[in-house]
Amino acid sequence: MHIGLIGLGKMGFNMRERLREKGIEVTGFDRNPDLTDVSTLDELVEALPAPRIVWVMVPAGQITDGVVKDLSEVLSEGDLVIDGGNSKFTDDQIHATLLAQKGIRFLDCGVSGGVWGLANGYGLMAGGSHADVELAMPVFDALRPEGDRAESFVHVGDVGAGHYAKMVHNGIEYGLMQSYAEGYELLEAKDIVKDVHGTFAAWQKGTVVRSWLLDLLVKALQEDPGLSKIAGYVEDSGEGRWTVEEAIANSVPAPAITAALFARFTSRQDDSPSMKMVAALRNQFGGHAVKPAQSNPE
Amino acid sequence: MHIGLIGLGKMGFNMRERLREKGIEVTGFDRNPDLTDVSTLDELVEALPAPRIVWVMVPAGQITDGVVKDLSEVLSEGDLVIDGGNSKFTDDQIHATLLAQKGIRFLDCGVSGGVWGLANGYGLMAGGSHADVELAMPVFDALRPEGDRAESFVHVGDVGAGHYAKMVHNGIEYGLMQSYAEGYELLEAKDIVKDVHGTFAAWQKGTVVRSWLLDLLVKALQEDPGLSKIAGYVEDSGEGRWTVEEAIANSVPAPAITAALFARFTSRQDDSPSMKMVAALRNQFGGHAVKPAQSNPE
Amino acid sequence: MHIGLIGLGKMGFNMRERLREKGIEVTGFDRNPDLTDVSTLDELVEALPAPRIVWVMVPAGQITDGVVKDLSEVLSEGDLVIDGGNSKFTDDQIHATLLAQKGIRFLDCGVSGGVWGLANGYGLMAGGSHADVELAMPVFDALRPEGDRAESFVHVGDVGAGHYAKMVHNGIEYGLMQSYAEGYELLEAKDIVKDVHGTFAAWQKGTVVRSWLLDLLVKALQEDPGLSKIAGYVEDSGEGRWTVEEAIANSVPAPAITAALFARFTSRQDDSPSMKMVAALRNQFGGHAVKPAQSNPE
Amino acid sequence: MHIGLIGLGKMGFNMRERLREKGIEVTGFDRNPDLTDVSTLDELVEALPAPRIVWVMVPAGQITDGVVKDLSEVLSEGDLVIDGGNSKFTDDQIHATLLAQKGIRFLDCGVSGGVWGLANGYGLMAGGSHADVELAMPVFDALRPEGDRAESFVHVGDVGAGHYAKMVHNGIEYGLMQSYAEGYELLEAKDIVKDVHGTFAAWQKGTVVRSWLLDLLVKALQEDPGLSKIAGYVEDSGEGRWTVEEAIANSVPAPAITAALFARFTSRQDDSPSMKMVAALRNQFGGHAVKPAQSNPE
Repeated sequence: MHIGLIGLGKMGFNMRERLREKGIEVTGFDRNPDLTDVSTLDELVEALPAPRIVWVMVPAGQITDGVVKDLSEVLSEGDLVIDGGNSKFTDDQIHATLLAQKGIRFLDCGVSGGVWGLANGYGLMAGGSHADVELAMPVFDALRPEGDRAESFVHVGDVGAGHYAKMVHNGIEYGLMQSYAEGYELLEAKDIVKDVHGTFAAWQKGTVVRSWLLDLLVKALQEDPGLSKIAGYVEDSGEGRWTVEEAIANSVPAPAITAALFARFTSRQDDSPSMKMVAALRNQFGGHAVKPAQSNPE
Repeated sequence: MHIGLIGLGKMGFNMRERLREKGIEVTGFDRNPDLTDVSTLDELVEALPAPRIVWVMVPAGQITDGVVKDLSEVLSEGDLVIDGGNSKFTDDQIHATLLAQKGIRFLDCGVSGGVWGLANGYGLMAGGSHADVELAMPVFDALRPEGDRAESFVHVGDVGAGHYAKMVHNGIEYGLMQSYAEGYELLEAKDIVKDVHGTFAAWQKGTVVRSWLLDLLVKALQEDPGLSKIAGYVEDSGEGRWTVEEAIANSVPAPAITAALFARFTSRQDDSPSMKMVAALRNQFGGHAVKPAQSNPE
Repeated sequence: MHIGLIGLGKMGFNMRERLREKGIEVTGFDRNPDLTDVSTLDELVEALPAPRIVWVMVPAGQITDGVVKDLSEVLSEGDLVIDGGNSKFTDDQIHATLLAQKGIRFLDCGVSGGVWGLANGYGLMAGGSHADVELAMPVFDALRPEGDRAESFVHVGDVGAGHYAKMVHNGIEYGLMQSYAEGYELLEAKDIVKDVHGTFAAWQKGTVVRSWLLDLLVKALQEDPGLSKIAGYVEDSGEGRWTVEEAIANSVPAPAITAALFARFTSRQDDSPSMKMVAALRNQFGGHAVKPAQSNPE
Repeated sequence: MHIGLIGLGKMGFNMRERLREKGIEVTGFDRNPDLTDVSTLDELVEALPAPRIVWVMVPAGQITDGVVKDLSEVLSEGDLVIDGGNSKFTDDQIHATLLAQKGIRFLDCGVSGGVWGLANGYGLMAGGSHADVELAMPVFDALRPEGDRAESFVHVGDVGAGHYAKMVHNGIEYGLMQSYAEGYELLEAKDIVKDVHGTFAAWQKGTVVRSWLLDLLVKALQEDPGLSKIAGYVEDSGEGRWTVEEAIANSVPAPAITAALFARFTSRQDDSPSMKMVAALRNQFGGHAVKPAQSNPE
């Protein structure tokens, strides 16, 4: 099998490696001339056997929109586009409809595993038709860990369902990380706990909280004891927000995941307008002293 | 009526004023010689007609413990101590038991109203026996706003119940302030809102969210538009913590009040250990960039 | 002044009353023949002097969309439509654009005060141009409480800003109610508190938590002690959801308001899928007993 | 090595099995004559070589208190008691002090792994002196999974530190389970997701959220698709509460873990007093209909 792969960043680059290791021929395309295998999209299309399979692995939103639009102009009836990025599930139907006008097929596929996927394989969640999933199965099988397919690949439903599952996966991920992080902060705060790193390390085997994220947490504490080199500043990339929006849209209470999202928002604030207001109110009714703004250097 | 009042700080000083304005004779005692009416506790006791009523208005915890102990040594059978501070309700029974050994009576009384109580009167929540409450009623009536007693005074239950009600009052207060503050931050964040101060001002009459705290919020924004002089740093004085602890002890979900408490904790952190951990984890699995600690000036 | 008012439900009916009491002539239109003053929209238009002012007070979403579309067909250049309902702020620009194609002017106006607005007046938050706001000012002045205009009316910004402010107002309202409710549940749960109703009643004057909502809470407990006649089932009408969505879109942490929203979601569930899962997990790892589903009557 | 083990319930029974399999001689004592190896505590003491090691595996609180007291009467100087139950860390110092009066040594040891520990080994967190930990190390090594000791055993600190770490472990566990559960509810709620079970199954290998709890979740869905046999009713056994209490005591924001705790409280309520109040308030200000209590069968 020979496929095209557009986007050779942190994820796409590794995926090209893994696919090739597993015997899939890959022609990669990226704007970075040091990474790309071909110079133009046209070259990419020419290099591929029909029906062409093109895996798109670029940032969600406008960039993915642009790539899908470009592909709708250069691909042919019966070709298949797979969006493996973190697109919002609502974008998938738009992309599928655009491509379908030319008879081009579309799958969305959530991909989890991060930088470790190259070695470990990726967890995959696909959305689209049964026939399109079957066509791409050799690619999925090469990307996912070896062993039982059901443990690393799922055909979640029609177009959009794959990215929806990936979105929820990331929402859960927010909650898991927040939970470990709260426990970490409490262990750090309590003086009777003399070995925080050792405690997390000892949870790796046998305990109820053992997980891959815990293993990474132990690794992080090993590399930077006390996390002294790192600021408590956390970005969010969209999927956590969408998860909470979907929770709201579906009347699903999601307090832990939402707490994780809000904690990230707070982490990025130099000063909190809402906490200024609470301080101002306490001063108003109780004459409680406030901390003047100038003591907060920026 | 003539009572003693121990503690002439922000609250006690104003209460002495109000009581005197309402025709209650007050002998005040404070360690600050500029404020006190007598030099020693013995003098205070001598100045009062039996059965003596002594209102204690000092910081909760060890200071109140000390004053109650001192009073147990100088007061006589039939005298009445009223703890008007913010003592934890569990302290009340200890104090009552100590005083009862000498036949001294005890009431706990939650007091709300802050620095405005002098002019407006205080909301009062009493715990203790019916007879003791009756004895002190002229004091309560002088302290509370004029008008219907039931709108500003309640005999909540036995010893401890007054402070319990005050604790819950303060827990609610945390939630109310947090709610207004979140709305404030959102209005400030949204560019189509051109007049945040005016919006809160316009909520003072007619709306569902009108309240005394809202009036203070408008006053705060008038005095310091944009709250530019104040840092988002908020202390907490115990009663919010106790409210959440009691919620837990009684299996009562209290997510909004707890959110308000945690927001205060976060407001006082220069950097968040839990957010360091989340940043470290994202870096581990996804290679996401972290903000180095040194960029966070302290 | 003579205006049209479309929608004579719980809110619109009262507003017609108040406007008439304040000397504004009102021609009301409603599908209910018992309520309406005219039989058709054409009649309504004919009855009004130019430039016509038509206040729309119908449910947000499709019904408001339909009314605005109808008005775009029967009104004339220079007429003014005011949407006083709870439309989402993003709908306002759509409505304004549609009407502007015919030269019809548009204001959005958030209205707070509920069924009490008839007697007390309504809090008003307007969005639109200065000129349009000025044109409608006699109507605003009649609807709002008497006294200082700035305490019950605000021109928040351009089209959409009025409803935005109302949305945030309602979000805050969610948080306020949740805070009081959590305090209520805790007071009810604690045996040493003998008079929950009396406690809330005593908070009405003097305390920091006094508010109009608190007054209503006391009234509710008076009418139904222990709230024995009412189920813990709470609807939500959109504005709470939008507030949290906007908080997310603007990276504003809003944990208390969100807690209030999620508590409503939970209140409407017969059984919680997420809690089923937690129960199932506890059973899996610890052999903890589960409550069988059939014991949960539905 | 030959030790005593008191408490042969779900955990203790399995631990006796595992210890024996690993070559540790165990004399078990339980009130249940079908389970116990000896009839009395005296018999147990007589059976053990000095210095005796007695592992206590009974419910925390009064029962553990009683067992420790009994042991303080029958054991001798130099003997060692290990509390492997889920005692509150503050109890440990009390127990240690009581035993120390007779020269009896004490370790607390948090044990994680549930019913799977028999086969997989247990994660262990010990608190106490270095010498006492060394004495008991063969027992710890037999209980924990084979392999690197640091991955399943930690000496956290002095007496109490082991149970403190276990408490935080369980708090994290609450947050992890809640996060998965929220994701589960959202996937179940969304119609485009056609295979919820398959989605979780596919997360077992390769994804960021893979964990032992996830494996159990998949097993639970396999055994009871849709969790139709189980009610959304979740107990809590103390450690989640203590974790939040400790978070409060140490000014550590713990919103996700607290959300998990409150969700359990809510799951056990037939009707929510706080939601009754919110419904009552909405009815008061807006005339919104309420659901009458009688429609809520109890």
